Amino acid sequence: LAAAISGRRQRRKSETLNRILAAAVQLFAERGYAETTVEDITEAADVGKGTFFNYFPTKDAVLLAVFENLRAEFAHYEDLIPKTRDVRSFLRKIVYDILNNPTRSQKLVRSILGKALMDPAVSQPFEAAMHQARHAVTSLLQRGQDLGQVRKDIPAAVLGRTFQQFIFGTQMLWAFSSNEDLYEWADVMLDIFWRGAAHRGKEQLVEEKQS
Amino acid sequence: LAAAISGRRQRRKSETLNRILAAAVQLFAERGYAETTVEDITEAADVGKGTFFNYFPTKDAVLLAVFENLRAEFAHYEDLIPKTRDVRSFLRKIVYDILNNPTRSQKLVRSILGKALMDPAVSQPFEAAMHQARHAVTSLLQRGQDLGQVRKDIPAAVLGRTFQQFIFGTQMLWAFSSNEDLYEWADVMLDIFWRGAAHRGKEQLVEEKQS
Repeated sequence: LAAAISGRRQRRKSETLNRILAAAVQLFAERGYAETTVEDITEAADVGKGTFFNYFPTKDAVLLAVFENLRAEFAHYEDLIPKTRDVRSFLRKIVYDILNNPTRSQKLVRSILGKALMDPAVSQPFEAAMHQARHAVTSLLQRGQDLGQVRKDIPAAVLGRTFQQFIFGTQMLWAFSSNEDLYEWADVMLDIFWRGAAHRGKEQLVEEKQS
Repeated sequence: LAAAISGRRQRRKSETLNRILAAAVQLFAERGYAETTVEDITEAADVGKGTFFNYFPTKDAVLLAVFENLRAEFAHYEDLIPKTRDVRSFLRKIVYDILNNPTRSQKLVRSILGKALMDPAVSQPFEAAMHQARHAVTSLLQRGQDLGQVRKDIPAAVLGRTFQQFIFGTQMLWAFSSNEDLYEWADVMLDIFWRGAAHRGKEQLVEEKQS
């Protein structure tokens, strides 16, 4: 019985946590991070301030939880890489998963990137998520080298870093644009990156001559 | 005589302006933008506060002047493009010119990008410089298409925007790194971009087969 109660409690706790997180990210996306107060979040999540502070000592702690979720997502990708046969498709899947978030607004990208650039307390966990993401992409490109799909004259770690440069720059410039289609931008970015990073074998040359 | 005095005055004015600008950028690079005060700048430039405010109503106005200089630099590139024969080299020259600044520190990049992302008063002139830069790169890539050096299945404007995504992402990620070599990062970025954006003709295929 005690275990059942404890399980139920745990479940309820995690539900509340997720409700607070979802409400917070939604507000960050609509108004920007700096423009959102803890009061706004507790109201939107329909919890008391005391409950909020049970989970998060500060508003910044919410952001850290967002970064931690992102980090965990990338750690999960790593498990799938050894079985991957088509590195290009997997790379596209990662990009689409990152972007495919209804709350990914220009305000959200601007305010969170801005905050990560300016505030050391936030930039550290942001960097942890970034490193995990880079590690996953590097493993994937290493796998691509092993499969003969990715060029080998540049180390996988450098290609992975470069890919991250491209995805960050894409989101940042898009955040300054007049509401353009982020997926279209991502597709061009992926096309150029892949053409630049792919292994060029004989077969590929023949294929291109034919087309 | 009046004209001579006026000429001398003009010269002295512009010298003072440049001294203030140089001192300010140097301080932004060392300490970050937010961490630099107007007092710091007047002291380093060895001018009175009154003189400073004759030129710049606020500290933000200094940043706007920096962006305006950058914008003018890119407008100048556009004049050189019609005579360009080697688009790849010109592209590399632009990147190196942007990066080749002794004050380009990680603190500078972080604090200025952060400020541009977060503060609407600064993001507008920042965007003006960005648009000029994108226009110059687009003209160059258009020239590359005319010369048969750049692929034509993606519009020059989209390639120009993508290039800008890559250069911004490169600087931003570098600003988070542990003092790595920005030029090395830029070289890989240029290699991947060019391979991804270059026209692939028959001769090129033959060349690659031979190598």
